[in-house]
Amino acid sequence: MEQLLWQRVDGRKPDDLRPLKITRNYIKHAEGSVLVELGDTRVICTCTVEDKVPPFQKGTGKGWITAEYAMLPRATHQRSQREAVKGRIGGRTYEIQRLIGRALRAVVDLDLLGERTLTLDCDVIQADGGTRTASITGAFIALADALQGLVEAGTLPGLPLRDYLAAVSVGKVEDRLLLDLCYEEDSRAQVDMNVVMTGQGLLVEVQGTAEDTAFPREELDALLDLASKGIAEMVAYQKQLVVLG
Amino acid sequence: MEQLLWQRVDGRKPDDLRPLKITRNYIKHAEGSVLVELGDTRVICTCTVEDKVPPFQKGTGKGWITAEYAMLPRATHQRSQREAVKGRIGGRTYEIQRLIGRALRAVVDLDLLGERTLTLDCDVIQADGGTRTASITGAFIALADALQGLVEAGTLPGLPLRDYLAAVSVGKVEDRLLLDLCYEEDSRAQVDMNVVMTGQGLLVEVQGTAEDTAFPREELDALLDLASKGIAEMVAYQKQLVVLG
Amino acid sequence: MEQLLWQRVDGRKPDDLRPLKITRNYIKHAEGSVLVELGDTRVICTCTVEDKVPPFQKGTGKGWITAEYAMLPRATHQRSQREAVKGRIGGRTYEIQRLIGRALRAVVDLDLLGERTLTLDCDVIQADGGTRTASITGAFIALADALQGLVEAGTLPGLPLRDYLAAVSVGKVEDRLLLDLCYEEDSRAQVDMNVVMTGQGLLVEVQGTAEDTAFPREELDALLDLASKGIAEMVAYQKQLVVLG
Amino acid sequence: MEQLLWQRVDGRKPDDLRPLKITRNYIKHAEGSVLVELGDTRVICTCTVEDKVPPFQKGTGKGWITAEYAMLPRATHQRSQREAVKGRIGGRTYEIQRLIGRALRAVVDLDLLGERTLTLDCDVIQADGGTRTASITGAFIALADALQGLVEAGTLPGLPLRDYLAAVSVGKVEDRLLLDLCYEEDSRAQVDMNVVMTGQGLLVEVQGTAEDTAFPREELDALLDLASKGIAEMVAYQKQLVVLG
Amino acid sequence: MEQLLWQRVDGRKPDDLRPLKITRNYIKHAEGSVLVELGDTRVICTCTVEDKVPPFQKGTGKGWITAEYAMLPRATHQRSQREAVKGRIGGRTYEIQRLIGRALRAVVDLDLLGERTLTLDCDVIQADGGTRTASITGAFIALADALQGLVEAGTLPGLPLRDYLAAVSVGKVEDRLLLDLCYEEDSRAQVDMNVVMTGQGLLVEVQGTAEDTAFPREELDALLDLASKGIAEMVAYQKQLVVLG
Amino acid sequence: MEQLLWQRVDGRKPDDLRPLKITRNYIKHAEGSVLVELGDTRVICTCTVEDKVPPFQKGTGKGWITAEYAMLPRATHQRSQREAVKGRIGGRTYEIQRLIGRALRAVVDLDLLGERTLTLDCDVIQADGGTRTASITGAFIALADALQGLVEAGTLPGLPLRDYLAAVSVGKVEDRLLLDLCYEEDSRAQVDMNVVMTGQGLLVEVQGTAEDTAFPREELDALLDLASKGIAEMVAYQKQLVVLG
Repeated sequence: MEQLLWQRVDGRKPDDLRPLKITRNYIKHAEGSVLVELGDTRVICTCTVEDKVPPFQKGTGKGWITAEYAMLPRATHQRSQREAVKGRIGGRTYEIQRLIGRALRAVVDLDLLGERTLTLDCDVIQADGGTRTASITGAFIALADALQGLVEAGTLPGLPLRDYLAAVSVGKVEDRLLLDLCYEEDSRAQVDMNVVMTGQGLLVEVQGTAEDTAFPREELDALLDLASKGIAEMVAYQKQLVVLG
Repeated sequence: MEQLLWQRVDGRKPDDLRPLKITRNYIKHAEGSVLVELGDTRVICTCTVEDKVPPFQKGTGKGWITAEYAMLPRATHQRSQREAVKGRIGGRTYEIQRLIGRALRAVVDLDLLGERTLTLDCDVIQADGGTRTASITGAFIALADALQGLVEAGTLPGLPLRDYLAAVSVGKVEDRLLLDLCYEEDSRAQVDMNVVMTGQGLLVEVQGTAEDTAFPREELDALLDLASKGIAEMVAYQKQLVVLG
Repeated sequence: MEQLLWQRVDGRKPDDLRPLKITRNYIKHAEGSVLVELGDTRVICTCTVEDKVPPFQKGTGKGWITAEYAMLPRATHQRSQREAVKGRIGGRTYEIQRLIGRALRAVVDLDLLGERTLTLDCDVIQADGGTRTASITGAFIALADALQGLVEAGTLPGLPLRDYLAAVSVGKVEDRLLLDLCYEEDSRAQVDMNVVMTGQGLLVEVQGTAEDTAFPREELDALLDLASKGIAEMVAYQKQLVVLG
Repeated sequence: MEQLLWQRVDGRKPDDLRPLKITRNYIKHAEGSVLVELGDTRVICTCTVEDKVPPFQKGTGKGWITAEYAMLPRATHQRSQREAVKGRIGGRTYEIQRLIGRALRAVVDLDLLGERTLTLDCDVIQADGGTRTASITGAFIALADALQGLVEAGTLPGLPLRDYLAAVSVGKVEDRLLLDLCYEEDSRAQVDMNVVMTGQGLLVEVQGTAEDTAFPREELDALLDLASKGIAEMVAYQKQLVVLG
Repeated sequence: MEQLLWQRVDGRKPDDLRPLKITRNYIKHAEGSVLVELGDTRVICTCTVEDKVPPFQKGTGKGWITAEYAMLPRATHQRSQREAVKGRIGGRTYEIQRLIGRALRAVVDLDLLGERTLTLDCDVIQADGGTRTASITGAFIALADALQGLVEAGTLPGLPLRDYLAAVSVGKVEDRLLLDLCYEEDSRAQVDMNVVMTGQGLLVEVQGTAEDTAFPREELDALLDLASKGIAEMVAYQKQLVVLG
Repeated sequence: MEQLLWQRVDGRKPDDLRPLKITRNYIKHAEGSVLVELGDTRVICTCTVEDKVPPFQKGTGKGWITAEYAMLPRATHQRSQREAVKGRIGGRTYEIQRLIGRALRAVVDLDLLGERTLTLDCDVIQADGGTRTASITGAFIALADALQGLVEAGTLPGLPLRDYLAAVSVGKVEDRLLLDLCYEEDSRAQVDMNVVMTGQGLLVEVQGTAEDTAFPREELDALLDLASKGIAEMVAYQKQLVVLG
């Protein structure tokens, strides 16, 4: 009963997603681009197509998907120093951009893509928790739009996408398990987990971390259930925008 | 007659500005923030207030205004590499951010500001020429909003702004003198000039460059006339948003 | 039956760990140090105690645990370039050293530690898969030895350790689920997962990644079962070396 | 009357240049080299010829002119840290070297030059104001000497120079308009302007900056008149050294 | 008499070497590898063979020998910051790795080696003085083993080694001349000298430095005598491991 | 006989120095400054006095002497890239500037100097071999002049210099032993040695290197004799400029 009446800081129930909105064709120069908004988290995702591949893919006939991630200095409560000013990219940024690239590659058929590279730039213009998962969910649409452009130009015979892809954060805050943490919740989380899944509900990435004290296997299971629910809702939204063969 | 019938690539007359739009309170965390749009050029300008000054201002009782400028990788036709990835900020970026900071300082009374620093971050999300001048015109509003916040909080007795401030590019393209060059014009310009002026029409910065061949003094004069016209229109727009003492 | 007869490249069964050996007091200058060997993977872990904390912990009375990770250039089959020569630390290194530090902090009572920092340096001198999990398992002993030194010097009243901590990799290779992947297996893995658990079997970190195609929830469960078995064996080994309250 | 009696810190009248001296063949290895002295400002300018062009010029048949600028650490009153020690080139340096290269390109026929690059290195060994304009004035002679060498070697049929080129600073100090500011004047200037002109008096670059308060258009005009006078004197000096077709 | 009774901090006589031990095949992936121990100084030396040469050797038919040197952070009494974290390699490291490469090249016939590069990585895992000289003495064996591998594979007709090579430090401490300084002696040395010699007793490198006050030529001579004695003992040890034509 | 008739590339005898010239007060801002010329090698040496010491000297009452060394890009036959452009200082530069600082410290009484740092900047404007030794010989005079200034200002009671200091290169070229190698000789040297000595003929630094093949002890002795002769001549020159107590 108490659980039913209890409300999160923004009035949501434990298993509520924040409003998701994806605006397509947001940047005119890019082959694919969206503004993805998940509550107050806003990320510009662009997809760039280039006819080259990294050295390790050369001559294989396969393509590549890579990602870069950054925040504007004032996306956050306190202004953060630009990584270009520091002269180097920080550890957190590296982790996130490797995650985004890896996740997207899991639903792309790199053989069908051919020897070209698609670069997803995810630039957070306003941050309120869940920037990396919102980036994945939005970047999937920017990627699909860029691929659709290649199909329409006759460069590709069909979309080399195996499935939809979305991601969400879940966590334990004050001993409650919550879906889609906002910044205020995330900063107090005891367990923090990011989950990436396909449209069919298969796992692509699970990253669960005890921030303070270790947690039992049953909580991992319950958090995965929450994430599955949230991702299913996100994929339903994506299906309104993009139709896969 | 030919001059009258002649049209620019986007249908403008030689002395037409592109549509200017400044959306305030664009980023919720910043003390001041706008999205400035000048035709297809779009820049997010935020203003951050911090209670510290650079070493050379310490103990003087004076404040400081500084700026940083960057482009998202896909703000441009071709994706450009992030400066954070290169590990260093390029020469063009340095020139532009020094210009923005210097220009804004010309209309701020640093004594009245007190020992605090206001940092203007100008991040270009879509580029179509004139990004540095649009940044100055938009950053002025973000700055004024942040200063107004300090007044409303009782930190400052009044706005330490001496005047409005706006900037525009002018140039010579195919031997015609044009106001507010778009990218397509800018890339073919024979003379390229950026002008920053106050609301009263005083000069703050004049940067004129012959791209290819030198130009006579009379053309400098005519270009300054065009810039004065454009800046007067921009200041009229700014006056609808911000009222100075 | 086929499953029973089937052997891994090094003759192990699917749920076999490689031989684990931890040699203590390996480097004479360090407050704690081990050589950890897991099959052919060999890592030197040292623990350094310093009476200072990062800025965000200052004045809190709490301590901090951090980690750095590196490989000697010829720890790997092909010589890899030193990160000092490149002038920057790579994304993979950042991910791993953040993981090691975070994992160890989960079993340390930072309040009892007081305002001091313990730095775990994990330097891989020979790599054969599982370097990050071997680092965690070995670093725990180097950390415990350094803390024991503080207890013996009267600096700390007791060991600020809540539990044992060990880590192992698991994965899917040629559709078989395996414990403790060697390099040859890891390079062909379809799913790759690193798990960190406490002596009591609680989860500290779960990082599962589909390298190629997404995987069902049941496989996640089976992989976690394998990891639990392996970690329990590692903790049994650790208990022979270190006794917690 | 007061204006007539008034003297500058070094005894000059408002429209006096400091003594200009250009010593040719100053460095034996370079294809062109000078020591340029403007009062106490001393700059070594060398010109290096290389048979390659930047990527954007490849295959165009056109050459390129570029410049680098630096100060010895003790060229200034206070020792300044080397940029090599800082690990990066500062914003001011970028601005200046871009200016020097751009200015020289305005009088060179890049088509006649052919696919080769001339690099002008301007190293300030003693600074007393006007280092960037002295660099341009001196670099023009180093460039002309290097080009003359190419003509004499039969590599070029004639000098690919369209005109002479010189530069000078002007400014407003204590409400007086002055030609060729020394450091002591420059550090107190209200308006600071650098002007680059050709031998025929055409403008190549105008960079005027209000350091403190904005200035009216009439002052811009008067400063340009002063600059024209100074540059004409410099070009007269250059004509004694180099004869253009 | 006093000289005879006098003992060094570790009980050695002035002309005693510390115990030298070289363990071969220490790292399984490398073409040659040793752990060299000189008292408490321990260094891992690996030799990597690659079929490429630096630009200045291309097309000459000659090979190249190069070296890199580093210390683990806790090889020293106080933890030292990683050079990868600082983002640059320090002056001391550069000096040492240039010395190691140069010294080894003096006994290798680069013509016989052919166009390939052998890279010696010397990583100090525990430091107690003499790390650079121990590195040279150990690297010679790693190099010889890698070259022997090329001979056995039929790539080279014979070992392209002209002679054995070893190095030792000597110095003046409290006015006594000592062979093979340990850290405690080295930190108080008035004169510090590193000597590299061949098996036949020829000089390859002499680096003598007055740390505090200058020294007479006779002391240089006596120090060279001590070094000759120590190196002869080291070469005798090497001859047990490697046989040259 | 043949030896007597034999001449070096520039007509010198084997034991001839090139003409040495030291011009004092070369840069007006520096506390001490010279232009040192040794044949065609020309180096500007400045000495800067600052009232601070490095961390390891703080509170000891002792001063410090340090040095930085650089070459202008076109000091050499081929233009070399600026280290500021590369973003890091190379190994050769580190070696040389450490050598210069160490050598000068050997003749300064750091206790008498008090807690201040003297920085010697040695910038090579034209290189023809022997740049590091010419730097030391010239920097000694710049240092002495800066110290004399401190004496004259009453800051120091007397010159804290123990002796004169000079340096020279010697080497074996085509089996002949030569004093003061020019670039053409240095580039073909079989043995290359730099020697730093005091006015009294004591050794401060000996760095001898076999470039190609090892050399016998007798050649080391003969090279040291040559160096002693050359340094004695340099010190005689220095005595005309500076008088020590």
